[in-house]
Amino acid sequence: MQINGAMLIGRSEVFGTAGTLNAFNPSDGSTLQPVFGAGDRVEVNRACSLAESAFDSYRETSLGDRARFLRQIAEGLLDLGDTLIERANQETGLPKARLTAERGRTMGQLEMFAKIVEDGRWIAATIDPAIPQRKPLPRVDLLMRRIALGPVGIFGASNFPLAFSVAGGDAASALAAGCPIVVKAHPAHLGTSELVGRVIQAAVASSGFHEGVFSLVIGDGYAIGEALVRHPSIKAVGSTGSRQGGLSLMKLAAQRQEPIPVYAEMSSINPVFLLPTALAINGEGIAKGFAESLALGVGQFCTNPGVVIGIDGHEFERFGAAASTEVNMRSAGTMLSPGIHAAYERGVARLTAVAEMEPLAMGVQLEGSCLGTPALFAIDAKTVMAKPELLEEVFGPVSTLIRCATQEEMFNIATRIEGQLTASIFAQGDDLPLARQLIPILEKKVGRIVFDGFSTGVEVGWAMVHGGPFPATSDSRTTSVGASAIDRFLRPVSYQNLPVELTPIYLQDRNPAHIPQTRDTRFQQP
Amino acid sequence: MQINGAMLIGRSEVFGTAGTLNAFNPSDGSTLQPVFGAGDRVEVNRACSLAESAFDSYRETSLGDRARFLRQIAEGLLDLGDTLIERANQETGLPKARLTAERGRTMGQLEMFAKIVEDGRWIAATIDPAIPQRKPLPRVDLLMRRIALGPVGIFGASNFPLAFSVAGGDAASALAAGCPIVVKAHPAHLGTSELVGRVIQAAVASSGFHEGVFSLVIGDGYAIGEALVRHPSIKAVGSTGSRQGGLSLMKLAAQRQEPIPVYAEMSSINPVFLLPTALAINGEGIAKGFAESLALGVGQFCTNPGVVIGIDGHEFERFGAAASTEVNMRSAGTMLSPGIHAAYERGVARLTAVAEMEPLAMGVQLEGSCLGTPALFAIDAKTVMAKPELLEEVFGPVSTLIRCATQEEMFNIATRIEGQLTASIFAQGDDLPLARQLIPILEKKVGRIVFDGFSTGVEVGWAMVHGGPFPATSDSRTTSVGASAIDRFLRPVSYQNLPVELTPIYLQDRNPAHIPQTRDTRFQQP
Repeated sequence: MQINGAMLIGRSEVFGTAGTLNAFNPSDGSTLQPVFGAGDRVEVNRACSLAESAFDSYRETSLGDRARFLRQIAEGLLDLGDTLIERANQETGLPKARLTAERGRTMGQLEMFAKIVEDGRWIAATIDPAIPQRKPLPRVDLLMRRIALGPVGIFGASNFPLAFSVAGGDAASALAAGCPIVVKAHPAHLGTSELVGRVIQAAVASSGFHEGVFSLVIGDGYAIGEALVRHPSIKAVGSTGSRQGGLSLMKLAAQRQEPIPVYAEMSSINPVFLLPTALAINGEGIAKGFAESLALGVGQFCTNPGVVIGIDGHEFERFGAAASTEVNMRSAGTMLSPGIHAAYERGVARLTAVAEMEPLAMGVQLEGSCLGTPALFAIDAKTVMAKPELLEEVFGPVSTLIRCATQEEMFNIATRIEGQLTASIFAQGDDLPLARQLIPILEKKVGRIVFDGFSTGVEVGWAMVHGGPFPATSDSRTTSVGASAIDRFLRPVSYQNLPVELTPIYLQDRNPAHIPQTRDTRFQQP
Repeated sequence: MQINGAMLIGRSEVFGTAGTLNAFNPSDGSTLQPVFGAGDRVEVNRACSLAESAFDSYRETSLGDRARFLRQIAEGLLDLGDTLIERANQETGLPKARLTAERGRTMGQLEMFAKIVEDGRWIAATIDPAIPQRKPLPRVDLLMRRIALGPVGIFGASNFPLAFSVAGGDAASALAAGCPIVVKAHPAHLGTSELVGRVIQAAVASSGFHEGVFSLVIGDGYAIGEALVRHPSIKAVGSTGSRQGGLSLMKLAAQRQEPIPVYAEMSSINPVFLLPTALAINGEGIAKGFAESLALGVGQFCTNPGVVIGIDGHEFERFGAAASTEVNMRSAGTMLSPGIHAAYERGVARLTAVAEMEPLAMGVQLEGSCLGTPALFAIDAKTVMAKPELLEEVFGPVSTLIRCATQEEMFNIATRIEGQLTASIFAQGDDLPLARQLIPILEKKVGRIVFDGFSTGVEVGWAMVHGGPFPATSDSRTTSVGASAIDRFLRPVSYQNLPVELTPIYLQDRNPAHIPQTRDTRFQQP
């Protein structure tokens, strides 16, 4: 499959005329071919209108057809073979092994949502049969199901060119729910996006679906994303990106004539709490795991451990020393883009400039383009309480140890942090009472609590929550990874006294779709 | 039980000092005793801080204790006996029979949520056991449950002094979810609110719960509501009211440092589609039902039929004539408050002033205070398409027949209407193909589709959706009536590698709470 530098609007290949864009190799600073034609409002409007036209037929496709479609996309990604991995490697600087694993994860997500579609629990089919003899009033016949929200606008993420981009988690869950999608490619991996987009485009065609089920638009700057969020046919937005980016999407969506939900994953420092006994038993092992998690993917994970909180004293100092040794040994790595690299350098400089901040360690600096060097700092909890901006995310391989004078200070830090995707607690034996006190604080702050481990490595399963209170995400009621991600794109509709001839198969008494139904408050397996 | 004119802040009775308020009898224009002391920011802050303090213990109360608490509130309402019904009648002008039925409904809601709490499906307990041997990476042990969002601010509704007010649907579902509540009483029924508030306050005390689980604040004007929505401890807002009121709550919530969800039910005209065969078979019967639904509760239901759409011709004219006869016979009724009455009069005057509007019928006008007279108009679809403001809600017993020249025009109207709570379709025999085309249009516009009936009369059950796309509500993904209302106040949290000693009972393997669990993707009954 070839990269033509095009947008994919329904079944058409469209070369934008609002300027040109190139992908860029962060490893060597070179410009990648071909040239892409940037789109504008015109293409966004066309894509959204097509999505609107596709909505009614796509949302009523059979569960089998929709599951097959998702699996076909997964197979298409695999069929791209090295073409995809190589292009993604060139555009992001991420190692091929990581990208191969990410492709596997992306395929796994599509497969999981195919199974979820077939399973049918997402429909929440509910049947309250009439009770004509009820007093004082008869009970009417009432049915409920969940239907797709409508066309969804999706923004590709910089840090996951496959798993959170064109055929990533937002796309898979929205398509599973029955929503056509219009994806805005991340400008840092335009070629990868086009390749993946062509796979979806082909799967739409071979499934016999309306062409408007999928479109891919590209463009630099704010205007094209704004046009997408503002378009009246778009009924929800999915995005993984910066806090600033997420906040502006939220604002745009709230200002629409019809406000719509925005699912933006924004920023997280993923605090790690090291309790005394765990430190005493295995401080060095934890330090090794910490440095690995910190440097993984050059720290460019949403779940990167940005602060580590411990009680000041010998054990925490020993941990700091071991972690410093680990960080000092690790080399700089290529970051995703010059913009991300520059922001990282600014973030580290900002931490360095804080008078109370103690620089603990710095990885091996190398000469080259877009290189981010791991760094470790330490500071006392009192200063952090006075300067809460130190608890804001710096995207990249940097972390700060926070030394608490007392357990009380540790609780204060836990209470002070903003909403996060994750928190980790290392606790052993005598630490359990302390952990038990931390949990209710952290439950209110994060989407996932990890014990005796770091939060990088996000399992795609039914029990996963990759979400959390603001500002980690724009909507704490949801997750962007895992089975519940489909809930974001559904809304309930009920039908009263519906004639049998008009009843959707999911709500029919004889249950021809073989899905779970809740009948008279009881959940019934098919 | 006595009405003292007080706020209830936790276990305390507090007399506000920010001015005085009186309830008002709309039937005779008289002022009701006692005088109420209005609260301000100070009491709101105290109530919200208490709610925050109560949150951790309340959200972990056992399912049995929480269900008992809800049932105790229901019993307390009944124990108030005539005191409650009489006061509500004085404050709202609603007939005692209606208020007695509304009390039954309110108790039914509390009982339903008690059962839902015990059932435990709302917890969405999910267990993905570890798979150490999985390749390439082992699967971690992951658990998920839903927990309460946090303290909820609730605004009492004018039109349901019991079922949508202090112990109404928002309160019952938030308390069921594990959220402490701070209720702002509607100023039109202060005494009713205090009586009901005392019942909840007593139930909190006798359950041994933290006093902060419930507070009731009162105040006139915007400031006290604003303080409630802005308070950082408040994590969600429930409200039933006007479009303007709902929009300002949404705006306040979005402007907070931490934006929070607002569940505002705002406005709806609940279009009724009369298809030709149904009209030919039973036009007069439908007209009778329509006039009854229109005049019910002096038209002060969110689900009142505000527009009726038919295809111009003999049958629709015959329907119009029959409906006019019915409306002409009905008398004016006391509306809830002078403000609502004045707005109704303005709304009817606005319709009368439209040149193309044909006045069809007007009920029997009476002398007295706050009397709203039923009214019926007719207009052609082309004018409505050109003046979409004619599709905005006028709260009260007025409706407009829209005459469509063709089926096409009927579809155009269906497509043009804004989001609604409900739509009705009357269809018989040959109408079914037309109904089949209308359904997908209306599914995107409304929360509930009613066949061969009117939408007043909202069943409190598992399959009910009392919600709908904006501007019917602020969040189409939810319902304010029915079992799913609890979902509004929950968010998922996952736990990775959690030690057995710290695992919440809902997620334990031996399932001591006897709730449904999803284990390894399979739903298992206890």
